[in-house]
Amino acid sequence: MALEGLLPELAVIRKDFPILERELAGGLPLVYLDSANTSQKPQVVIDTMVDHLERHNANIARAMHQLGAESTEAFEAARDKVAAFIGAPERDEVIFTKNASEALNLVANTLAWAGPRQVGAGDEVVITEMEHHSNIVPWQLLTQRTGATLRWFGITDDGRLDLSAIDELITERTKVVSLTWVSNMLGTINPVAAITKRAHAVGALVVVDASQAAPQLPIDLAAMPADERPDLVAFTGHKVVGPTGIGVLWGARAVLDVLPPFLGGGEMIETVRMESSTYAGIPHKFEAGTPPIVEAVGLGAAVDYLGHIGMDAIHAHEQAITGYALQGLQTVKGLTVLGPLDPAARGGAISFELDGVHPHDIAQVLDSRGVAVRAGHHCAKPAHARFGVQSSTRMSSYLYTEPSEIDALVEALEYTRSYFKLD
Amino acid sequence: MALEGLLPELAVIRKDFPILERELAGGLPLVYLDSANTSQKPQVVIDTMVDHLERHNANIARAMHQLGAESTEAFEAARDKVAAFIGAPERDEVIFTKNASEALNLVANTLAWAGPRQVGAGDEVVITEMEHHSNIVPWQLLTQRTGATLRWFGITDDGRLDLSAIDELITERTKVVSLTWVSNMLGTINPVAAITKRAHAVGALVVVDASQAAPQLPIDLAAMPADERPDLVAFTGHKVVGPTGIGVLWGARAVLDVLPPFLGGGEMIETVRMESSTYAGIPHKFEAGTPPIVEAVGLGAAVDYLGHIGMDAIHAHEQAITGYALQGLQTVKGLTVLGPLDPAARGGAISFELDGVHPHDIAQVLDSRGVAVRAGHHCAKPAHARFGVQSSTRMSSYLYTEPSEIDALVEALEYTRSYFKLD
Repeated sequence: MALEGLLPELAVIRKDFPILERELAGGLPLVYLDSANTSQKPQVVIDTMVDHLERHNANIARAMHQLGAESTEAFEAARDKVAAFIGAPERDEVIFTKNASEALNLVANTLAWAGPRQVGAGDEVVITEMEHHSNIVPWQLLTQRTGATLRWFGITDDGRLDLSAIDELITERTKVVSLTWVSNMLGTINPVAAITKRAHAVGALVVVDASQAAPQLPIDLAAMPADERPDLVAFTGHKVVGPTGIGVLWGARAVLDVLPPFLGGGEMIETVRMESSTYAGIPHKFEAGTPPIVEAVGLGAAVDYLGHIGMDAIHAHEQAITGYALQGLQTVKGLTVLGPLDPAARGGAISFELDGVHPHDIAQVLDSRGVAVRAGHHCAKPAHARFGVQSSTRMSSYLYTEPSEIDALVEALEYTRSYFKLD
Repeated sequence: MALEGLLPELAVIRKDFPILERELAGGLPLVYLDSANTSQKPQVVIDTMVDHLERHNANIARAMHQLGAESTEAFEAARDKVAAFIGAPERDEVIFTKNASEALNLVANTLAWAGPRQVGAGDEVVITEMEHHSNIVPWQLLTQRTGATLRWFGITDDGRLDLSAIDELITERTKVVSLTWVSNMLGTINPVAAITKRAHAVGALVVVDASQAAPQLPIDLAAMPADERPDLVAFTGHKVVGPTGIGVLWGARAVLDVLPPFLGGGEMIETVRMESSTYAGIPHKFEAGTPPIVEAVGLGAAVDYLGHIGMDAIHAHEQAITGYALQGLQTVKGLTVLGPLDPAARGGAISFELDGVHPHDIAQVLDSRGVAVRAGHHCAKPAHARFGVQSSTRMSSYLYTEPSEIDALVEALEYTRSYFKLD
């Protein structure tokens, strides 16, 4: 196997992930192809969390003792690491949330309240038909609650955003454009810079769901021209080999400064009287209560780990595996890939249909062979509806995926065909 | 040392907490008296999280493979454990949030939107002057944003709620009463049942911040008479020997069912079309996105650990240590305890002033002796203002606290007095 672009140290990398040595029921080796759902964790992330819990655990900011200082330092160092990971212009623009959904809701919820960016009747919010539910429902709630109108980009037959009517869709009435960088179902990489440029030309805020992009694409926000740089970017820790319970909202200071508070509580205040309160500056303004401390520390170790390998190298690896998988899948009779067929235009999640077999049945047969994939609507019902299906099967790779696992998937799909007696 | 009520197996319990063997700078042993800020974690919680990350990590609900099934089972088992821990009438009434602040904000934020419990102009919300900021600011935001009025119970000179005007404060205009069960600053245990009864008599919702109560008091919601049982109860994982990144909102099904959604996204939906969506039932309706999975699993291990020791025994231990600490602190010249002096009327957090020394200076000197306490406003600025102070020093104990640590605190306070050359 000599695929161009594979990580040269792949065998070593796989040893960093203890779960990959896990034996499943019946002694089967694990073939984990569900990384777009959640990624596995390298030992260094687990060990960093254990060390924090066993030696440094304390609440942060509030505590004036040695453990408190150590814990605060570890938490704020994680913010620095995350800022470096995405090339944030300022480290204080990195807000820790519990997941990407909270990050997106933080924006959509606060835009309902009085402020220079408030969304109201007559205003429009533009999303796309290929969004994850986490980037649809918050905007439905916002527009329904404020009397604004929700509009969206459609999808072309080959699984790309239909930008043909962009100038009619994004207009002076548009207050927000929110879109995914990489589709979690179709894999499509969207032209974020071009859409942002158009949105900024009409004064709209641009929100980007980078949940699938952050794990795979090198991101350098500071290097983007200002008019092409989104205003707010959300992603989640557990998809970048970090723990659950931690997400990130990056936002330009000028935007975060004028958004009203989201969660009220400790640490987000400047002063509190019973009658009224004033609020802290960013990032604390949006981090009420005890934050996910050990989770941030774990995420810091995770992005360090990815950065050490290099996001360019990881992206090349993803593209190699994705290309190899697209080739392999297309050898399976009756299999249709949903989304672009050019690996360079897409991320590592590949959803497909197999004529005559329900995705849930496919996933079950694959599971019986140790191959873990996702079946269902992948929290993207509208994108499925666009292609006339309720659900699909999705394989998704990551930096630890090796070509032999794609071979195992293809073999298991052939077995599925024979199991269901397809010709 | 033969204090009545101490946990008999205290030496064994201390061995469960690896951080307690930590040596601080200068070889000092750790005297951790900051448990109301965050509790330390027993080995079993850390090991359970590691086992999950190394062997069972997968996303939940969505994944139709062996790891996904194992992860989902562990996550939902944690919900069962938490439900048992607080005696929840129904396990599906337990909502996982990121912390207690999110739980309280979930309620305050959703009450702004259309629904049978909506709060609007002319309505009143009643809180108390001894709330943590996390139970003040969300209600300020709600009332400011909706035109409702915020009112509050004052505090008596001995640090209890002033209930003398309860019938003028809680009236037919009252839509919500939200109060802390145990004050994080004064330690006061509030008469939740009596206040709930009055609030229910006028049809108001009752929200209880149990962040300090859940670690210390046996809670059995199902055993409370319905008219005295709060409607919503919030607490956080990291104060009950669980990890950060996980909190709990328990709510009566009838209330949770009619609250509008808070965060929109994956798993909280029934169906999503671009035009509109319908929502899942509880608990999923309030758990958008990938939840804090390994954190819930860790919290499950934490409440199992506490349950195995027994919350009655832990409460007795806290009362014994608190009584011993109150005695010891009162031997220090110039020291004034803020809050009730009767250990039976209070929890294990004891805030105090020392004439002539700023709390931050006290904490620093104590830290130099290895004694970790909190100094500042403890996220309770109004309660401090009530007693004419900006800040205080707070010691707080937990099930692993031993009397010799209280002795160390008292000695360190005497050293502080000599250090600052107080007579």
